[in-house]
Amino acid sequence: MSTDETPDQSVPDEVHEELMQATYRALCAHGYADLTMQRIADEAGKSKSLLHYHYGTKHELLAAFLAFLLDRFEKRVESTEGNAPDERLEFLLDKMVPEEDEDETYDRFGLALNELRMQAPYVEAYREQFDRNEDVIRQRFADIIRDGIEADIFRDVDAERTASLLFAALDGARLQRVSVATPSADAEANQSARAAPREVRAALDEFVVSNLLRDGGDE
Amino acid sequence: MSTDETPDQSVPDEVHEELMQATYRALCAHGYADLTMQRIADEAGKSKSLLHYHYGTKHELLAAFLAFLLDRFEKRVESTEGNAPDERLEFLLDKMVPEEDEDETYDRFGLALNELRMQAPYVEAYREQFDRNEDVIRQRFADIIRDGIEADIFRDVDAERTASLLFAALDGARLQRVSVATPSADAEANQSARAAPREVRAALDEFVVSNLLRDGGDE
Repeated sequence: MSTDETPDQSVPDEVHEELMQATYRALCAHGYADLTMQRIADEAGKSKSLLHYHYGTKHELLAAFLAFLLDRFEKRVESTEGNAPDERLEFLLDKMVPEEDEDETYDRFGLALNELRMQAPYVEAYREQFDRNEDVIRQRFADIIRDGIEADIFRDVDAERTASLLFAALDGARLQRVSVATPSADAEANQSARAAPREVRAALDEFVVSNLLRDGGDE
Repeated sequence: MSTDETPDQSVPDEVHEELMQATYRALCAHGYADLTMQRIADEAGKSKSLLHYHYGTKHELLAAFLAFLLDRFEKRVESTEGNAPDERLEFLLDKMVPEEDEDETYDRFGLALNELRMQAPYVEAYREQFDRNEDVIRQRFADIIRDGIEADIFRDVDAERTASLLFAALDGARLQRVSVATPSADAEANQSARAAPREVRAALDEFVVSNLLRDGGDE
């Protein structure tokens, strides 16, 4: 948790942003298996040596990219910090569900990210960063639930455990979507996988959020 | 759904079982990325040409392996069919959670299976079989919930949606476990990922199962 969040000591903010956006586009275009430093450099319109100079190896660059995603996530979530716990919870849940009109890029990126994730046990830089990203998101959920309990809006539940459920359910639903609901697949057959994140989101409202909100608690 | 379930028309049951067990061991030992027909053949103590003869390509063999897993899953679940819906639900939930004393093999196999799953968008044979496997498990959950509603044991909920939540939550929790909680990783740092399936299982009991069971329903 005390790890330095900036992925590199020397890269200027603007260049970092530009290279991270290029990494995003390269991942969407090629997936993880076919991703090379050259392809990321091509997307950025920069030289491969510049990438190596700023980030080191491909593994290190991708770990920096995961840190970049976490950073962006945190900024979005922080913007809601003054709001009531129940509103913040809804906002965070929504953040994990694709928008109605999300295009193929969403699934392609989600797939590439999960391919990368399956490499985590073999690549320490990925593992550390994924572990950190997942932990931060889970803790966000837990913090909101604790705030809600303290403010007497939520009933008194195990915040960590409830957070684990919320995160795992939406994570699993997104995984189901990206792993079978590809553009190349038969659209009809994959209807349920495509709909999984929104289905699960609705079920979480029904079973978890409404239970948390039950006035006064019933334990 | 009307697809023939037997992976091959000619391979004798005993040989099939033996080769599927060898595929399981080879996946655990090498992961998906380093899995070759030769390595599976070595595990089985058979020739590579025999594998090709019975199953065709590596993709087809692994699709047959996924069908084999589904088949085994179904047999286990079918054995509980005479039981009450709430018992069947608990049984099915437990089936998706690792035992307390599960060893490294569990995580290694889970990881290999998810590596394979990330290939589904690129390999039609995998995609079809994963789609089918996931659909069958989700439908099992939905059937049990419908039976419970009919028997007046569960309150009247949307069975499909509730099934999606149960399946996605345990699927996501297992994924979190296998993707960061590897034997090579720092044991302490990965405590929460290792515990995710059991945490989520407990949260599902608290929020979903107990809600389903609430006498008479409260809608």
